[in-house]
Amino acid sequence: MISVVILGAGNVATHLFKALNDAKKTSVIQCFNRKIDALNSYKNNVDITDDLNQLKEADIYILAVSDDAIASLSQQLPFENRLVVHTSGSVSVYDLDKKHKRGVLYPLQTFSKEVKMDFKNVPICIETVDKKSYPLLKELAVSIGSPTKRVNSDQRKVLHLAAVFVNNFTNQLYRIGHEITESEGAEFDLLKPLILESAKKIQDVSPYMAQTGPAKRNDKKTINKHLKILKNDQHKAIYKLLTTSIQHTHGSKKL
Amino acid sequence: MISVVILGAGNVATHLFKALNDAKKTSVIQCFNRKIDALNSYKNNVDITDDLNQLKEADIYILAVSDDAIASLSQQLPFENRLVVHTSGSVSVYDLDKKHKRGVLYPLQTFSKEVKMDFKNVPICIETVDKKSYPLLKELAVSIGSPTKRVNSDQRKVLHLAAVFVNNFTNQLYRIGHEITESEGAEFDLLKPLILESAKKIQDVSPYMAQTGPAKRNDKKTINKHLKILKNDQHKAIYKLLTTSIQHTHGSKKL
Repeated sequence: MISVVILGAGNVATHLFKALNDAKKTSVIQCFNRKIDALNSYKNNVDITDDLNQLKEADIYILAVSDDAIASLSQQLPFENRLVVHTSGSVSVYDLDKKHKRGVLYPLQTFSKEVKMDFKNVPICIETVDKKSYPLLKELAVSIGSPTKRVNSDQRKVLHLAAVFVNNFTNQLYRIGHEITESEGAEFDLLKPLILESAKKIQDVSPYMAQTGPAKRNDKKTINKHLKILKNDQHKAIYKLLTTSIQHTHGSKKL
Repeated sequence: MISVVILGAGNVATHLFKALNDAKKTSVIQCFNRKIDALNSYKNNVDITDDLNQLKEADIYILAVSDDAIASLSQQLPFENRLVVHTSGSVSVYDLDKKHKRGVLYPLQTFSKEVKMDFKNVPICIETVDKKSYPLLKELAVSIGSPTKRVNSDQRKVLHLAAVFVNNFTNQLYRIGHEITESEGAEFDLLKPLILESAKKIQDVSPYMAQTGPAKRNDKKTINKHLKILKNDQHKAIYKLLTTSIQHTHGSKKL
């Protein structure tokens, strides 16, 4: 049985708590948060505390806190030589205090507090400073059903960056689609099956092969029609830049 | 029984043929294409022709051809006063020759020739010049299980434009995610569950509510880290522009 203490009460902490608490091979023995009220919903299931000096001894301490809090929290932990990991995509593993055995468990997924997440669909990228810590972190991730991948710092950082492109930026394109359609009283809902299909297609086909549309075909007539419809200068700039990017990728236009 | 002639042999024509051929209330009585070879796989199921003068009488003629071919093909049809529709998102319904009853059946979906499409997931936007043609087109769309929506020209055009944002441009962001990860030997496959989850989230939550990440939080530290990692100037420009767009939407930064 792997014993775990979770520090933090945000989305990642909450989802990890539920998954690790349900798993057979792991036991969450304590949850810590500076504001103990945020842990109130757990208090019947696990010991909770807001005092670092009350932290129990465990196999793994998971710091699921905001990026800026990781370094100082790791310094304040009143013990050393135990395995302490953070869950951030962009913070260095060396930001953790060197008195600990250090690692990262980076879950590559978007979490909503309300929606239950099946960890089968949450790849966990594992990084460790010393090799010996790796098997235990892998066992933890496997225990909740996650696919795992050992990564180095550079790989974790580009995965985090790529996640911004495929999640945050993609979501902003959905938002622009929403604004454009509503402006003419058309229904954004009509686009939802297309949005889902575009994401499903990529599960089997490379994004290169999946591309279609006026930019790829270099269909200037349609591109000009679209630029005329767009009233918002920022939307226009995004249209032009992504059209050029597609044409660059597919060689339909020299840059 | 609604009788249909399909003109064209591309993705949309192929998928419409299969769906209409399977539907109980519709009968595809003929397929036309300039290059008859492209219709060879249908010839055991339906009459095929490459001669406009051999076209049979039908309730609806569907011109599922490239945007540029619609106007001239509609002129060349050797009959008048019959219902002729095209399937394009961006071509005017008035590009069809005025000797016909004119309409548009615009399927709002991305089709791949290999992948079977369930028309339950293909909203069909219907536009007609005269009101009387509408019920028949609606009946046709309903017969293959599609959700339908009556739209005007402006609405159809913004839906097509929005489709470029949520499908083609989104796919290019997936492509950039692919390039960035591969450049460090990280696996693009790790991003696939995130891509799917981002699209699923939008089925129930507005894109505005679904947004997360460094741009929305105005997390300058992470944004600067990401800009440092990006080597490609075009990727950098896309990162900056979409970050600004998110900040504009969420009021985290004044423009």
